[in-house]
Amino acid sequence: MQNLKLPFTKETVEKIVEKYPTPFHIYDEAAIRKNARAFSAAFSWVPGGFRNHFAVKALPNPYILEILAEEGMGTDCSSLPELLLSEAAGITGEEIMFSSNDTPAEEFVKARELGAIINLDDISHIDYLEKHAGLPEMLSVRYNPGRLKGGNAIIGVPEEAKYGFTREQVIDAYSILKARGVRRFGLHTMVASNELNSDYFVETAAILFDLASEAAKKAGVHIELINLGGGVGIPYKPEDRPVDIPYVSQGIEKLYETKIRPSGLHPVRVIMECGRVITGPYGYLVARVRHKKETYKTFVGLDASMANLMRPAMYGAHHHITVLGKEDAPVDHVYDVTGSLCENNDKFAIDRKLPEIEVGDLVVIHNTGAHGHAMGFNYNGKLRSAELLLRPDGSVKLIRRAETAKDYFATLDYPGLG
Amino acid sequence: MQNLKLPFTKETVEKIVEKYPTPFHIYDEAAIRKNARAFSAAFSWVPGGFRNHFAVKALPNPYILEILAEEGMGTDCSSLPELLLSEAAGITGEEIMFSSNDTPAEEFVKARELGAIINLDDISHIDYLEKHAGLPEMLSVRYNPGRLKGGNAIIGVPEEAKYGFTREQVIDAYSILKARGVRRFGLHTMVASNELNSDYFVETAAILFDLASEAAKKAGVHIELINLGGGVGIPYKPEDRPVDIPYVSQGIEKLYETKIRPSGLHPVRVIMECGRVITGPYGYLVARVRHKKETYKTFVGLDASMANLMRPAMYGAHHHITVLGKEDAPVDHVYDVTGSLCENNDKFAIDRKLPEIEVGDLVVIHNTGAHGHAMGFNYNGKLRSAELLLRPDGSVKLIRRAETAKDYFATLDYPGLG
Repeated sequence: MQNLKLPFTKETVEKIVEKYPTPFHIYDEAAIRKNARAFSAAFSWVPGGFRNHFAVKALPNPYILEILAEEGMGTDCSSLPELLLSEAAGITGEEIMFSSNDTPAEEFVKARELGAIINLDDISHIDYLEKHAGLPEMLSVRYNPGRLKGGNAIIGVPEEAKYGFTREQVIDAYSILKARGVRRFGLHTMVASNELNSDYFVETAAILFDLASEAAKKAGVHIELINLGGGVGIPYKPEDRPVDIPYVSQGIEKLYETKIRPSGLHPVRVIMECGRVITGPYGYLVARVRHKKETYKTFVGLDASMANLMRPAMYGAHHHITVLGKEDAPVDHVYDVTGSLCENNDKFAIDRKLPEIEVGDLVVIHNTGAHGHAMGFNYNGKLRSAELLLRPDGSVKLIRRAETAKDYFATLDYPGLG
Repeated sequence: MQNLKLPFTKETVEKIVEKYPTPFHIYDEAAIRKNARAFSAAFSWVPGGFRNHFAVKALPNPYILEILAEEGMGTDCSSLPELLLSEAAGITGEEIMFSSNDTPAEEFVKARELGAIINLDDISHIDYLEKHAGLPEMLSVRYNPGRLKGGNAIIGVPEEAKYGFTREQVIDAYSILKARGVRRFGLHTMVASNELNSDYFVETAAILFDLASEAAKKAGVHIELINLGGGVGIPYKPEDRPVDIPYVSQGIEKLYETKIRPSGLHPVRVIMECGRVITGPYGYLVARVRHKKETYKTFVGLDASMANLMRPAMYGAHHHITVLGKEDAPVDHVYDVTGSLCENNDKFAIDRKLPEIEVGDLVVIHNTGAHGHAMGFNYNGKLRSAELLLRPDGSVKLIRRAETAKDYFATLDYPGLG
């Protein structure tokens, strides 16, 4: 019997589905607020100020961004629609970090208009930004440590990654930017995705703190902002342990004292751009069992599919599953839990031990609060589901409606459709 | 110097982009028609009649379906939106094969309304279909050969696949359906995806022909339709060889003579449900080089992304790339060809040998006529591109407009968006 605590009971969900049919993602507002507050509080020691810029791509819903802004978070945007979402949610200026790669001109223009902190991905983007949007007074630069930093399972080895500047390019860039009138500087790296090793983040800070001191000295600039990136993982698997945020923070604080304070850079703003660890564990995909099938294995078919959650099919990712109302039942059956998409890897779980499942059961797939709904596709004509917010008072608010066939046909101009 | 023939020159494309900016998918109508005709012609020997039911999920555009219908093809649908697309394109009745899995009631209802050939995926669907939509006079059954048939790289081993009935279930199903008044029967299997071994398809026919004879005898029913499925691959890689369709057809004809004709099932309709091999090689993703970047490697950044083509990132798939106007230039540079999505695996090619590329070059990614646009997602706020049709007279027709930020926000009800 392995179960994670849910913020709702079967009875609550049965009431919700009367109004909002399955499948849907539901986010636990109280838990998100509490978690966001604790995350920021862990870094309250930062002398120049700390802010987490929530990675919008993890959960690009303006209602969620609004909640996170109320808890002191900004946004990390990397496309025009993400900038527009941030703006609509009232998050503008230096509350936005714009870290794009292979960036189109119109995105730089919009980022400038919003006063976002632009984080350049390549040295060639200096000319490109200047030409298309002009250089702002403040600019950040994304560092790719190459072989200096070992790889991470999802993001791969840094020297193969398309992101960022080499060490020499970082220093050159500051010199060039200074000569062109930029006065305020930031430094950023992002070398992990869904990483659970707490030390990884402390090591990353050490690399960035060292480079910041060196680059500031060599280029003769003042670095006022250090962005340690995101990539903090969450425990998807039963044996996973969460990253110890207070431990990470203390490790970084020690490095700050030994590396930043003596370097002349103090007080520096330290920021992060975590998405997954902020909302991931507090989102749930709720689906109903539509079919049960016995052939060479036993398959449980849900009314959800890869359109709602891509991670198991795309990465072989594990997501915990609870069968509502059977939280205390013996886990003595083995199922492939599938979606309806006409692709054999549309499975939420393979050979998963679960309580006995019947058609009609409500099933909760855990940890879908980040990179869940956001990654859904319309392959095979499958439609993306609604998103609901479970409010602290227990009420439920629709924060994104489900797609309809009309949405699916919206880009077609053809008689009889739409 | 490795190049595949293109149906357009750099000059043609420079004219097209004046009206339709990159990126876009463009489909070669003349080549699709010619290929579809040749495919059907290869099976003209089938005594009961042959039809390929184009797998709509490969390229769900009604303009393409209309063209294929003019060339004698039907559709293979597996979702409600696909049924609606087929209907809009004028393809109805038994021109539609409805092969869904984990099927919702409303899809069976719509399939019945259209008079589609319903292909049941599981024995439990007999009761489900009868309850929700009633049993039609004609039904097909999907067979999963389990260990009888070896695996295929994409679709996996059959006994792990969520699809179809066991052998015993097929025979039981026919008996049950007969008792409930069904009079006409079909048999189907689909055990491959993107398979290039021509013999694989002949072997599949042997398995199905044997089972059809056995099941017809044991259940006392007449099987009038055998659907050999699809899964015929295309040569994505330079060293790949296409499936030899005439060879496959001749192999199946021989089996027909030895297995079907003496069994009493003659004349049987033989159908297939190929998508990829029909349109795949005749679609191209055209993009422009936006950035070029030198760090630990050389990266070429396009104005396209995984939103337009997911296969390289999802499957590590190879897609040939042509740099327009440099078809005859020496292939003496090595690039990672990337998209702009904030995900490191958003690369169209890794360590690819290509001619020297400059910013502004037009790049053609080949073989995107199937499972290309259809699989695009909106992750990271990336928008899906337009689809163009290159007509036999050289004119170009917009058959799907590009998405806008407004489309991306369509399911949100939030001030300032939409």
